[in-house]
Amino acid sequence: MDVKIARTAGFCWGVRRTVDQVMDVADHAGRPVVTLGPIIHNPQAVARMQEKGVRTVNAIAEVEAGTTVVVRTHGAVKSEMEAAKARGFEVVDGTCPYVKYPQAMAQRLSRQGYHVVIVGDANHAEVKGVISYAEGPCTVVRPGAPVPDLPDKKVAVIAQTTCIGADFERIVGALALRHKEVRAVNTICSDTEERQDDARQLAREVDAVVVVGGKNSANTRHLAEICRAIQPRTWHVETEEELRPEWFRGCGTVGISAGASTPDWVVEGVAQRLRKLA
Amino acid sequence: MDVKIARTAGFCWGVRRTVDQVMDVADHAGRPVVTLGPIIHNPQAVARMQEKGVRTVNAIAEVEAGTTVVVRTHGAVKSEMEAAKARGFEVVDGTCPYVKYPQAMAQRLSRQGYHVVIVGDANHAEVKGVISYAEGPCTVVRPGAPVPDLPDKKVAVIAQTTCIGADFERIVGALALRHKEVRAVNTICSDTEERQDDARQLAREVDAVVVVGGKNSANTRHLAEICRAIQPRTWHVETEEELRPEWFRGCGTVGISAGASTPDWVVEGVAQRLRKLA
Repeated sequence: MDVKIARTAGFCWGVRRTVDQVMDVADHAGRPVVTLGPIIHNPQAVARMQEKGVRTVNAIAEVEAGTTVVVRTHGAVKSEMEAAKARGFEVVDGTCPYVKYPQAMAQRLSRQGYHVVIVGDANHAEVKGVISYAEGPCTVVRPGAPVPDLPDKKVAVIAQTTCIGADFERIVGALALRHKEVRAVNTICSDTEERQDDARQLAREVDAVVVVGGKNSANTRHLAEICRAIQPRTWHVETEEELRPEWFRGCGTVGISAGASTPDWVVEGVAQRLRKLA
Repeated sequence: MDVKIARTAGFCWGVRRTVDQVMDVADHAGRPVVTLGPIIHNPQAVARMQEKGVRTVNAIAEVEAGTTVVVRTHGAVKSEMEAAKARGFEVVDGTCPYVKYPQAMAQRLSRQGYHVVIVGDANHAEVKGVISYAEGPCTVVRPGAPVPDLPDKKVAVIAQTTCIGADFERIVGALALRHKEVRAVNTICSDTEERQDDARQLAREVDAVVVVGGKNSANTRHLAEICRAIQPRTWHVETEEELRPEWFRGCGTVGISAGASTPDWVVEGVAQRLRKLA
């Protein structure tokens, strides 16, 4: 069976940067290292870091004195950043610069009197962080959800960096019709867009698609959604162990796409297993 | 045959205001009165004004000294307003305040560095006027036309006051996805929206619709479009003389909607003729 890997599959620039940071800190800190939440949404990558002695904590309150705190790719809520500083921890800020951008926009636009709308998942770490920077009314609209009635004349719209473009488009348009002024700042990261475009293209060219990445990874789940809409034979797996030969019966070519938090070695493992299938 | 007239059929507040202004000036000016372009897009109403001696000119260059110049509901291009002042004419500004708003926005947003997009018809007097207030790049996008590729990061979107909401929604959404920042100011006048909502509702309740108003009136044509999408038996007429009995064969109830520039007496004429049809 032929295997075709999407050009943009695997670690994005921001994830690679944070993973390098945490590995470097683990090797050189000479003291305990914790990450505030799982560093990226990939259980296999997190397991590798644990092997290096890096622990994951859920809140600054759990951290002991003398520890180095790494903020994960998705960022953290403002009060946790402040608590880490107040308690004097060494903080390595692994927040992706593309996530810093919506955080800064939430703050700036709310200071300018806009009701801030975030298109994304209110339960996602990145969005929780972004919300915490808004200094006025802030509403999260889930892609696909009805557009809410907001009482404000001025509404600003930003997006989770991994949002699907069409969802942002729909929600901005609908709000623009209902409010006197809508200011949309497209905070979808260009890596996400390219990766989605590549996945879309790949899905058109193959007989089945395997999307590799954490089941808890928003951007990986979006890739699977996008591919499935084009090629119904789309499977979302975390590792090669989940692959079932019967999924690929009669397939000449299988495409692989992978989330921004999926390590290359996990993608390669999936590719090797697929190549061995008749 | 039953006739049902939409609640919002006929002169809007802005048109009534301008027509009152020009009638008042014609009665009391004591000198020649001209309107810069047809005062409203309704041949019947314009004819009534001509009976009072009000002439229509196409440009300030045509106006003789000692004349009072009335600016029409749709406004005028900035250079013509300036020329009228420079030549010392008494100017009665009949520009609808709802049209002043996109004019002011085109100026303000272009000064703030936005590429200004106007959703509307580039050949319409209102849009020509609005364009003239932009002090930087300005692009008109016709509803239904493909969204253009613009080189700028910051794009502001405004609309012709009589734009159909769904067209504004679509174009704002598409631009928001392509540009770093899109600032949409909804300049569709609320009268237009209400009138369109009423027409939509009416079209659902009747066996045929007559939309009354100037064939050159953008807002009247939009009403006809909206009604026709719901009730294919929709007719756009300027006066009752165009009505054909065969259009209404088998109809129990006929609905009437009318543009913002259609005088009440023209609507009433259509209603009376319809009531007489078997």
